[in-house]
Amino acid sequence: MNRFITTAVAAALATASVAGIAAPGPTVGWDDIANDDRTTGDVLSYGMGLKAQRYSTLATINRDNVASLHPAWSFSFGGEKQRGQEAQALVHNGVIYVTASYSRIFALDAKTGKQLWAYEQRLPDDIRPCCDVVNRGAAIYGNKIFFGTLDARVVALDKDTGKVVWNKKFGDHKVGYTMTGAPTLVKEKGGRVLLIHGSSGDEFGVVGWLFARDPETGEEVWARPLVEGHQGRRDGKPGTYTGNPKAPSWPDDKTSPTGKVQPWSQGGGAPWQSASFDPETNTIVIGAGNPAPWNGNLRTPVGGDPKKFDSLFTSGQAYVDATTGELKGFFQHTPNDTWDFSGNNEIVLFDYKDKNGKTIKAGAHADRNGFFFVTDTNKLASGSGYPNKPTSLIAAYPFVDGITWAKGFDLKTGRPIENEGQRPKQPAEGVDKGESVFVSPPFLGGKNWNPMSYNPETGLFYIAANHWGMDYWAEHLTYKPGSAYLGMGFRIKRLHDDHVGTLRALDPQTGKIVWEHKETFPLWAGTLTTAGGLVVTGTSNGYVKIFDAKDGKELWSFQTGSGVVSIPITWEQDGDQYIGIASGYGGAVPLWGGDMADLTKQVTQGGSFWVFKLPKRS
Amino acid sequence: MNRFITTAVAAALATASVAGIAAPGPTVGWDDIANDDRTTGDVLSYGMGLKAQRYSTLATINRDNVASLHPAWSFSFGGEKQRGQEAQALVHNGVIYVTASYSRIFALDAKTGKQLWAYEQRLPDDIRPCCDVVNRGAAIYGNKIFFGTLDARVVALDKDTGKVVWNKKFGDHKVGYTMTGAPTLVKEKGGRVLLIHGSSGDEFGVVGWLFARDPETGEEVWARPLVEGHQGRRDGKPGTYTGNPKAPSWPDDKTSPTGKVQPWSQGGGAPWQSASFDPETNTIVIGAGNPAPWNGNLRTPVGGDPKKFDSLFTSGQAYVDATTGELKGFFQHTPNDTWDFSGNNEIVLFDYKDKNGKTIKAGAHADRNGFFFVTDTNKLASGSGYPNKPTSLIAAYPFVDGITWAKGFDLKTGRPIENEGQRPKQPAEGVDKGESVFVSPPFLGGKNWNPMSYNPETGLFYIAANHWGMDYWAEHLTYKPGSAYLGMGFRIKRLHDDHVGTLRALDPQTGKIVWEHKETFPLWAGTLTTAGGLVVTGTSNGYVKIFDAKDGKELWSFQTGSGVVSIPITWEQDGDQYIGIASGYGGAVPLWGGDMADLTKQVTQGGSFWVFKLPKRS
Repeated sequence: MNRFITTAVAAALATASVAGIAAPGPTVGWDDIANDDRTTGDVLSYGMGLKAQRYSTLATINRDNVASLHPAWSFSFGGEKQRGQEAQALVHNGVIYVTASYSRIFALDAKTGKQLWAYEQRLPDDIRPCCDVVNRGAAIYGNKIFFGTLDARVVALDKDTGKVVWNKKFGDHKVGYTMTGAPTLVKEKGGRVLLIHGSSGDEFGVVGWLFARDPETGEEVWARPLVEGHQGRRDGKPGTYTGNPKAPSWPDDKTSPTGKVQPWSQGGGAPWQSASFDPETNTIVIGAGNPAPWNGNLRTPVGGDPKKFDSLFTSGQAYVDATTGELKGFFQHTPNDTWDFSGNNEIVLFDYKDKNGKTIKAGAHADRNGFFFVTDTNKLASGSGYPNKPTSLIAAYPFVDGITWAKGFDLKTGRPIENEGQRPKQPAEGVDKGESVFVSPPFLGGKNWNPMSYNPETGLFYIAANHWGMDYWAEHLTYKPGSAYLGMGFRIKRLHDDHVGTLRALDPQTGKIVWEHKETFPLWAGTLTTAGGLVVTGTSNGYVKIFDAKDGKELWSFQTGSGVVSIPITWEQDGDQYIGIASGYGGAVPLWGGDMADLTKQVTQGGSFWVFKLPKRS
Repeated sequence: MNRFITTAVAAALATASVAGIAAPGPTVGWDDIANDDRTTGDVLSYGMGLKAQRYSTLATINRDNVASLHPAWSFSFGGEKQRGQEAQALVHNGVIYVTASYSRIFALDAKTGKQLWAYEQRLPDDIRPCCDVVNRGAAIYGNKIFFGTLDARVVALDKDTGKVVWNKKFGDHKVGYTMTGAPTLVKEKGGRVLLIHGSSGDEFGVVGWLFARDPETGEEVWARPLVEGHQGRRDGKPGTYTGNPKAPSWPDDKTSPTGKVQPWSQGGGAPWQSASFDPETNTIVIGAGNPAPWNGNLRTPVGGDPKKFDSLFTSGQAYVDATTGELKGFFQHTPNDTWDFSGNNEIVLFDYKDKNGKTIKAGAHADRNGFFFVTDTNKLASGSGYPNKPTSLIAAYPFVDGITWAKGFDLKTGRPIENEGQRPKQPAEGVDKGESVFVSPPFLGGKNWNPMSYNPETGLFYIAANHWGMDYWAEHLTYKPGSAYLGMGFRIKRLHDDHVGTLRALDPQTGKIVWEHKETFPLWAGTLTTAGGLVVTGTSNGYVKIFDAKDGKELWSFQTGSGVVSIPITWEQDGDQYIGIASGYGGAVPLWGGDMADLTKQVTQGGSFWVFKLPKRS
């Protein structure tokens, strides 16, 4: 090569570097995402794999050496913006992509923590996030990073420069639409890769939607509302109705222009967490949010039987055809949910062995209602008949103590066996609030959004759960756009003196709690498990903690200085295994948590990303 | 003992603990403070000793093992308040007391980082900090912690509970008075312990004051203004004048009610950093700020010789009698300072050997004007005659490259040998700005506030310095209360392509730079040196770094995620040596730094305290 040309190229590159123009890095293909659970050098999906098991095959950090783990670096999100940091980061080609509170995203050099670029959505003043200004993570595909914003947008950025490629508004933030969950990618059976994301906003009375977009342009491919009888869209045209167009699971009201009770028009069901994906059955699996309003009396005819008005398709797990956006199957965790149990928590796909030792493709879901559900995903993904398929239930185990609202589930009908008196009654006209009932779990859930993990080696699920309850009563309610749409009052209380949080290892074959670790403060961080025999999570009082996956022994902890309510990841680079997690206290507990909000007042806010590694081998 | 009584006491104590009433811990006596430089289990004074040498006799962490140093914990100051964290922490009885931006202070368990209490001054909206909302540290004595606030107060808190004991306003924050420096304690020769602190606010045109207070009550014992001819106070009564009551170092103006030019009434000289103390001579040693306004033309008669109007007692080092508050001696680093060099930087007391090998009690001071001064402190503390004593100068070495404003100092007269043309000329009437002059160092200084350290074993001073300059021009000015009072315009520029910061080891006997370490970004953190042969400091791009005190080799670094512009400390507890430092970028550079502000835009804000230790010995 002519050395003068070489020099000229070097000079040009040097200039580009000074100007901040990054050279395009390797792109992310579908196969990279599909294999995310088997590759250790990157983290390309929320859930660390399409099945969302949050399991890593890495064992460099393990039971024997984890005691010497220490921080490699930390990064401050800055900007005098703190509050809850709930993100799971992604890692690709030596770069960490992590979202932060107030709709921010940062690209960081994974080895040094050096900021490569940052993007902050300019948020209007009238956003309506119910449960803090959090963001739970981004998606990556091709040369783009995708994340949702509090003003109800999805933004695509060039992964190398942070420049905006497209920015799509999907709902009116003024009436309550917002987005806090991480988008995900699927490849539908026709070969098209789609960006999947949901809306948030159930507390403001908006209909929840699941969207599929062209990742190149952001154009909507299909959109599926999750309130029965609402009409979807496909390829820019009106599409099919969700379930029965007459919405028999919601009461009629002949005086209404829609023919249905008013709450049906605001019905909730937002799929605000992130989807798992089963390529074999071409099925997107995602939780649907609570019905709106919370108050089930308003979604039941006066004097009617609440068991006959399930408020479909809310508070359950939804199985959506990736190609068409059709709702193929649904299992409802809480029919006619009047406790805001919602159904959003992740559905982890795993292999369940039935009594005959036969492997069944199953979904595992630890619900806010306190039950751990094992469902037959092939039945739910089959696509025939009416979507609601309660008989796809395999098992429903209580995973927390002291559940008051139901004795358990009838495995034949797939429906809960409710305890009497747990549905607060509507107050009489002229009376402000109805009689208070103590309910456990409270609406904050036996487990909330913070995802569990599954370790195929131990066969256990690791659930960051909480023991608490609520005083709960009904109130009158009128819908007003942009105002809270609950119709219930509450106060969160503790169940036990010695702990609120309980990290539990659950055997999905038996429902047995194999071990538990108690925490004084509520647990609000996701878990990660590894082939090194470890379970990683964070605590609301600032620790990152690592436990033995077999027996729950606490092997290591580090104090990050603010509450940890995010999701840990792990990856390897140049032979070293790293663990990464965001720190920064916030989320729903300090805003809605009553006695638990008071308890955690002593936790300072923060906003930083932490990376841990073992000491240099000598 | 009757076991029932014991049980009752235990129950009572348990109740007290639940109610957050801490048992009173051991108090801090004067001897504890006086011996601070020799005791390793605590850090009881800003400067880590009365001499402000910032030297620790600890050698557990040393050249040989520092590579394995790692974070023990971190604490987030929280509150969606970040900006500059410039504090030096204190340590007593296993508790860290650290101040933070926006006039906050935290008490933390030194081993775990757990917050014991926090206090935040409720600040009015109309505070006027010139150079970010920083605080540089607290003082401790008896059962109290003392710190200054941005609304010009000193607050005393119970060290065990954080409850306010007293809170004294010392100036009008609306006209520019504020406080950012750490108070200190002295014991005057009469046996009375006094709390010493200064005011800030030179950029707004207020007269700088040094105060002595009763630490028990906060009552003022004496107060000394640092503009010549202003009258002090003692025991609540009008006191002596500072220097000559006629103030010959400021021009007369017979048309003015004071008889002096208007700037004399607003003259600056604020002692906004912290005092050293020499108990032998009963002398408080503290730097005095720049004259106000910056523009020296306005402090010189039209057509007069600026060398004849020194604007005393500004931009120099002041020696104040601890008992009476009299100004005994003064050495001016920059007579008639027109460059905002100020004179505030710390004066480190140390033993200087003269050419005959005789030990002289000396002061070392690295000034913003680029010169490192060695002064004879016994001469300055002698208390006889007119305070201004330029002939107390022993040596004046340039400690940065490229000084433009002066060739050096005349050791006989103790005055600078100024270069012509470096004093920007006043613009003609009707012209907005005068001719621009390039000056180095710029007003941000060869070294700014960030204190240096002195290691008696190596005999070297460790100075976090910067290489930069400014385009500088004069502007017209009218005094308006609460508005900036400068009369100068500027733009900070780099001197070298490859670095701005330069950590330098200087031999005070020769002025020789024994080693230097260059940094891309400006250095704005203090230094600490230890018997382990180490120099510790922080960098504006987020690293805590440790160097070999002998040769400057970088031995260790850790990325904290935001710029480090604070002061490291070290202490031991239960056999382990700890290093503590705050992280959080801010201070004057991002606000005033021109090209350097642009350079550091990529640094995210933060607000956290970090503690480092060696791994557990196996």
